[in-house]
Amino acid sequence: MPEIRLNPITGDWVIIATERAKRPEDFVHKKERKEMPSFVATCPFCPGNEDKTPSETHSIGGENGKWLVRSVPNKFSALSPVGEILKNKTKFKQNISGVGLHEVIIETPLHNMTTALLSLDHIEKILYMYRHRLIAFYEDERIEHVIIFKNHGASAGTSLEHPHSQIVGTPVFPGQVMNRLGEAIRNYYYVDFGECLYCSCLKTELEDKERIIEENDAFVAFIPYAALSPFHIWIFPKTHSASYGLITDREITLLATILKNILLRLYTGLDNPDFNYVVRTLSPRGADAKYFHWYIAIVPRVSQVAGFEMGTGMFINTALPEASAKFLQEIKLPV
Amino acid sequence: MPEIRLNPITGDWVIIATERAKRPEDFVHKKERKEMPSFVATCPFCPGNEDKTPSETHSIGGENGKWLVRSVPNKFSALSPVGEILKNKTKFKQNISGVGLHEVIIETPLHNMTTALLSLDHIEKILYMYRHRLIAFYEDERIEHVIIFKNHGASAGTSLEHPHSQIVGTPVFPGQVMNRLGEAIRNYYYVDFGECLYCSCLKTELEDKERIIEENDAFVAFIPYAALSPFHIWIFPKTHSASYGLITDREITLLATILKNILLRLYTGLDNPDFNYVVRTLSPRGADAKYFHWYIAIVPRVSQVAGFEMGTGMFINTALPEASAKFLQEIKLPV
Repeated sequence: MPEIRLNPITGDWVIIATERAKRPEDFVHKKERKEMPSFVATCPFCPGNEDKTPSETHSIGGENGKWLVRSVPNKFSALSPVGEILKNKTKFKQNISGVGLHEVIIETPLHNMTTALLSLDHIEKILYMYRHRLIAFYEDERIEHVIIFKNHGASAGTSLEHPHSQIVGTPVFPGQVMNRLGEAIRNYYYVDFGECLYCSCLKTELEDKERIIEENDAFVAFIPYAALSPFHIWIFPKTHSASYGLITDREITLLATILKNILLRLYTGLDNPDFNYVVRTLSPRGADAKYFHWYIAIVPRVSQVAGFEMGTGMFINTALPEASAKFLQEIKLPV
Repeated sequence: MPEIRLNPITGDWVIIATERAKRPEDFVHKKERKEMPSFVATCPFCPGNEDKTPSETHSIGGENGKWLVRSVPNKFSALSPVGEILKNKTKFKQNISGVGLHEVIIETPLHNMTTALLSLDHIEKILYMYRHRLIAFYEDERIEHVIIFKNHGASAGTSLEHPHSQIVGTPVFPGQVMNRLGEAIRNYYYVDFGECLYCSCLKTELEDKERIIEENDAFVAFIPYAALSPFHIWIFPKTHSASYGLITDREITLLATILKNILLRLYTGLDNPDFNYVVRTLSPRGADAKYFHWYIAIVPRVSQVAGFEMGTGMFINTALPEASAKFLQEIKLPV
């Protein structure tokens, strides 16, 4: 008998289709590994081609004054960085000028590298960069919401193979995020008399244990009880905080460890799958919010969204979350 | 300057990325057309193979007692058609047994046919079948919500190429649909003093004219003001009704005409693109609902969802809705 589970954070039901459940191994899509060079002369993100991107907004260097991680405005920005915000509202047509910030974070000088294989020290630098740009984006008064995300692989929507993340600041607060915030506030104030929904879910996951993949002093990585797809992973900070912008240096070290390990488990166990991850956070200005909790969601692209998901927002997960977690736990990481 | 438009029905903002806007022609992905046979011996949906599917639940015939459209339980159903509903709720883990109905509607005996090329008379039969199965599904007291959808082509999630639609009845009401219903009710009762949000949006679209593709006595097909992707199309009934289950025979004739024309415009103009469509409807039992309005949404799969869309629910549409509508209007349909 299949089971339908509620995700209390998104408010969505997920069908765990145990009848047609696959073994975790069935999601491994062996790919033809093409050997990639570490430098590509035409790649705008490779060192030496810095003039092919708009001027850098920040850079974190290694030795010899060379950059290891750099951020640049997106040349094909979805939003215009300059301009005034103009709002228009007639009854059923409401619009706002497409002003906003959109940057690319180039994660490494090496064209053929992948996050999972970078050193811990290097991943820390990427996470420092996320914090730096997030804070800078929110300093722009026109920005209402900022999202950090990474698309890895063609089926996850990447057009450039050089490792990079993106950060987008919009002049509107997204409806989906508003709905979740509403749910979190309702839970905090009415349902739980002042307990963060995310903290409570995390507590349940830690008690249950069986969906936890990794844990350290500051973070827990787990497959949520109502995971929307196989290997859908959440990384939650243990200490309540509404904004990634306030992450401490010590926490960054611990996040780098857990993020690397999780990506390495996916890389090893699922043969370098395409994936997306997003950092869900509020502004550091509103970081005293007691009801919201920042976190990272990782979604390997091993299944497809079709009419059912579009029309209902419900997902059909053909893997048991507990089995997916066990599979990832048991992967031997290279020492 | 890009523009951000609000979709009042979903509550989502859409970035109309005019800066990187493509011409409608750029979304045509010329495909290698492989010649398909009209009959495939191993296809469970081809005539003569009726014993390869579970027993038919309904069939609509042509002459000679042969079926033209038939519905059968999905052999790989996401939900179990038999069983009792068991509900479980601990604080942060809530689940319900995966009981529900899931059927396949085989649209034609011909393996190599496509909806756009079927006769009007035949499309009417498919629409009759939708109505019949929707009503039957809602007669099952365990069912809370029913969705009808079609996945056309591999990138839209089809695994079987023989033309078919699907209908799924779930024992839970989807969160996404609940959010939209909430928005519609709020609008109806508080914002507009008793005017259906959908009727009002349709009125605006009809006044604006420029995004209308087709219109007849009972239906309007248009690209919504805040279309989430290029060629995202809505077909709205002009007469207010909350349920497809109450569509009249005359309306079915008119819906067949407009649906065929729209699919034919996509087929001709975009070279048979992969697409999904969904029929969004409430139960015919609750069809006196003044605030909800059933409709069909068609989404050709010409763009990709990535981290930004996942993390915000906002879409980036690289085509101007008015330009997409004009492109589809101007396609010459075969007489």
